[in-house]
Amino acid sequence: MRSLNQYQSFFQYYLSENAFMQSPSELYEPVNYILSLGGKRLRPLLALMGCELFDTAIEKALPIAMSVEIFHNFTLLHDDIMDSAPLRRGKPTVHMQYNVNTGILSGDVMLIYAYDFLMKIKDENISSKLIKIFNKMAIEVCEGQQYDMNFEIRNNVTINEYLKMIELKTAVLLAAAFQMGALVGGASEAEAQHLYEFGRNVGMAFQIQDDILDTYGDPEKFGKKVGGDIVQNKKTYLVLKTYQLANSSQQADLQQLMNTITADEVQKIEAVKSIFNDLNIREEAEKTMTNYLNIAFQHIDDTPLSIERKNYLKTWANELMMRSN
Amino acid sequence: MRSLNQYQSFFQYYLSENAFMQSPSELYEPVNYILSLGGKRLRPLLALMGCELFDTAIEKALPIAMSVEIFHNFTLLHDDIMDSAPLRRGKPTVHMQYNVNTGILSGDVMLIYAYDFLMKIKDENISSKLIKIFNKMAIEVCEGQQYDMNFEIRNNVTINEYLKMIELKTAVLLAAAFQMGALVGGASEAEAQHLYEFGRNVGMAFQIQDDILDTYGDPEKFGKKVGGDIVQNKKTYLVLKTYQLANSSQQADLQQLMNTITADEVQKIEAVKSIFNDLNIREEAEKTMTNYLNIAFQHIDDTPLSIERKNYLKTWANELMMRSN
Repeated sequence: MRSLNQYQSFFQYYLSENAFMQSPSELYEPVNYILSLGGKRLRPLLALMGCELFDTAIEKALPIAMSVEIFHNFTLLHDDIMDSAPLRRGKPTVHMQYNVNTGILSGDVMLIYAYDFLMKIKDENISSKLIKIFNKMAIEVCEGQQYDMNFEIRNNVTINEYLKMIELKTAVLLAAAFQMGALVGGASEAEAQHLYEFGRNVGMAFQIQDDILDTYGDPEKFGKKVGGDIVQNKKTYLVLKTYQLANSSQQADLQQLMNTITADEVQKIEAVKSIFNDLNIREEAEKTMTNYLNIAFQHIDDTPLSIERKNYLKTWANELMMRSN
Repeated sequence: MRSLNQYQSFFQYYLSENAFMQSPSELYEPVNYILSLGGKRLRPLLALMGCELFDTAIEKALPIAMSVEIFHNFTLLHDDIMDSAPLRRGKPTVHMQYNVNTGILSGDVMLIYAYDFLMKIKDENISSKLIKIFNKMAIEVCEGQQYDMNFEIRNNVTINEYLKMIELKTAVLLAAAFQMGALVGGASEAEAQHLYEFGRNVGMAFQIQDDILDTYGDPEKFGKKVGGDIVQNKKTYLVLKTYQLANSSQQADLQQLMNTITADEVQKIEAVKSIFNDLNIREEAEKTMTNYLNIAFQHIDDTPLSIERKNYLKTWANELMMRSN
């Protein structure tokens, strides 16, 4: 297996080779723009790693890596329009840099190109499987986004509903990237399914860790503003777990804080954190996260991969959880 | 070959059998809503006819018919958002009936389902071809929509640019529907390519006829308000041909009319029509339309289909041009 930097620069090269130079430029410039904003390139990494578990010729998986990165950025582009978000990775969002109509249409064409890159896999038996996996995943991501929007205006969201939402919105794409990479590398369907489950459970852990870091991350290392979720009254895992464990007075306190838009953000963050701390919410969330990681590792143990490769994947997943951005 | 009504009710039944009953309803209700608004179901018809030219078991082509109808309605849904259109087929557009965010996301999931239905074709060799045809077509439709938006704010659009735009935005979907139906029916690639060209040229004729009918259609029979294009200062084939043939005084008159938003729509329509009439623009447009039809018929003549089938297709295309809505 290669280093993460190797995978990333390998993908970055393919991305630059495949810049969208077609006409009309009004359609494709925003595509290049959002793809150039960077990010962790986590999904391409998963596709390439998934392939290399079974075949060192990872260039075969580059179209998969490109497909999942284009799809991910398509969802960011349309989500940013729906959220009226002004910034993405510190730069203007596509609809701010260009306009909303351009954002909608450039997003649409990105979704189509995600399929187009999958079809660069020449083996029809495999490409047919890839399209089916991709369809299921892409439908689920849309459903997850709709649930997320529904939850914003609902006050009785349960933890199970939240977990289902983050599974659909986040985890299944990581899962499918890994599974598709493995299939292109020559994995059997059963092996690829274990990798799907590994990716899905790592994705769940990843999102819960995201919720934890947003409140408890090191401000020096965390990319976003710490406490942003609290300021925006987001129904994160921490909040929903608090509602579950709190007594009625704590519930009322949290409810009141979450109905407030205040100028004193620091005070609000401290007040909410103090309720979290009283109920050991951080530890509760970490327990759940660790639980997902353990299920993920079990799926790796159930494959016939070498001990070295199993350890590589586990180390990678553990380090992903330690990330500060 | 069956009657148009038979194809249409066959498709209508499949559509009702495949209503979107999934969760979340907030995502799928708008999909059912726009698909229920009706319309000519022209693209499903083409898919079914394309199949029946080679195989009477047209139920094989129903997933193709569904795919192209879902795709077409996805484009209408997102286009209506981009145009801020309040009505579609006399009913509120999706973003008016629900909201813009729902419109964006429901449109996205429709695009994915268009692929999902294509994958219901079990033969991997064929489904792989279908996805490639669909990808190319779908990318072109997005490009056509972008050109259409570009042309709205440009004053020097040429007739060739306009023809390219309507080819991308309208004709290639009719072409691909016919081609994909034929492939599922067992057509060879060469035969399917002739049907693609038939569909593309009929599509060009269809759109030019649309421009003609918008100004010269029978108000009793024409579905939309006659003269709507003129009122909206649309750069139709009639307008662009006028700019090409007009002397400088006529050009100035048309330019002035097209820069005007007037309360007296009837007077504006009559003034523009009078310039059209002075230059025989209707006849010019009909000549171009007939030219496309003749090319379409040539492609039919180049297939090994029976005389009866060739005549069926030609009669159908001629009647499509005679339509009043």
